[in-house]
Amino acid sequence: MSKLLQEAVAEFAKLPGVGRRTALRLAMHLLKMDEAAVEQMTSSIARFRKNIRYCESCNNLSDEAVCPICSNPERDHSTICVVEQVGDLMSIENTHQYRGQYHVLGGVISPMQGIGPSDLKIDMLVEKVASGSVKEVILAISTSVEGETTLFYIMNRLKQYPEVKVTTIARGIGFGDELEYVDELTITHALMNRREVE
Amino acid sequence: MSKLLQEAVAEFAKLPGVGRRTALRLAMHLLKMDEAAVEQMTSSIARFRKNIRYCESCNNLSDEAVCPICSNPERDHSTICVVEQVGDLMSIENTHQYRGQYHVLGGVISPMQGIGPSDLKIDMLVEKVASGSVKEVILAISTSVEGETTLFYIMNRLKQYPEVKVTTIARGIGFGDELEYVDELTITHALMNRREVE
Repeated sequence: MSKLLQEAVAEFAKLPGVGRRTALRLAMHLLKMDEAAVEQMTSSIARFRKNIRYCESCNNLSDEAVCPICSNPERDHSTICVVEQVGDLMSIENTHQYRGQYHVLGGVISPMQGIGPSDLKIDMLVEKVASGSVKEVILAISTSVEGETTLFYIMNRLKQYPEVKVTTIARGIGFGDELEYVDELTITHALMNRREVE
Repeated sequence: MSKLLQEAVAEFAKLPGVGRRTALRLAMHLLKMDEAAVEQMTSSIARFRKNIRYCESCNNLSDEAVCPICSNPERDHSTICVVEQVGDLMSIENTHQYRGQYHVLGGVISPMQGIGPSDLKIDMLVEKVASGSVKEVILAISTSVEGETTLFYIMNRLKQYPEVKVTTIARGIGFGDELEYVDELTITHALMNRREVE
């Protein structure tokens, strides 16, 4: 087998969810693409890894020292939405409904994986709250055991600032979800938090 | 969203089977890898696309003008196994049982996709047979309608060399396949071609 191909396949196979067979298919696909297009692809990817930074203020991925959300004076700087990872931030941004700031933790507390509070950007969040300009912290953290642990840890840390409102996003049945397939915990929660029809 | 990230995601999403969500996951994964490892990955892939060639003799992917299989004097040059694509050649090579040569067609005849015999390396195969050194041509082509069309077309072209044996690989029930889930055509074929137990 060609050494060039072997190397390309081995490199593709390092990506998550890409086995040898898929890696080979990807390599073969490159042969159908223009050489220039492949060059553009690989250089974009390398450039991303080399030049991407974490926002000094919120830990979002950023091209500059401070991300466009943090540096945007039009956005509400008194509300911070705390998320686990950059992907969550993007999902919320895609709704175009939220005009506040973010804070990306970089994960959740997970003793099993050896991730403690000091491995996350929690101190950075508390400092921001301590500065006094924050009115509300929205915790948009997943409902896993690790997520709940993280949530309670952050809530505890923020208790010393009673003037700051701490909220969590609403849990319930998603739009388009079929009740039949929704887990019991979510249904229980949705029932308990039922709202009167106006 | 970061422009660097946006570009990397857009490039990943050009790969087959990679949607925006997967592309984002791949980009995020790169951040967990060393910068040097990502550099190695992207340069290997770019180098593959830039320098890979098709073997002048058999159309296999190759680092040199002639691939290691064609240039290996230890292999049987009187037997040619005809396959659709390089992946098929690799599957056969992985068995370590075949010691002959290959010929990669580069696809199958498919009027629906506008692929005619002249788009495949069939003339190249016939020329090789015409040279007189070939004793057997094994057609290892898939049993799809397009594959069968290609098979019959090649068989017709090779009829002018009656001294050359033309064979096809055996069809039947694969080892480990459960009869219950095998299609009728394969079962019919396997029954018709049954062998006496020795």
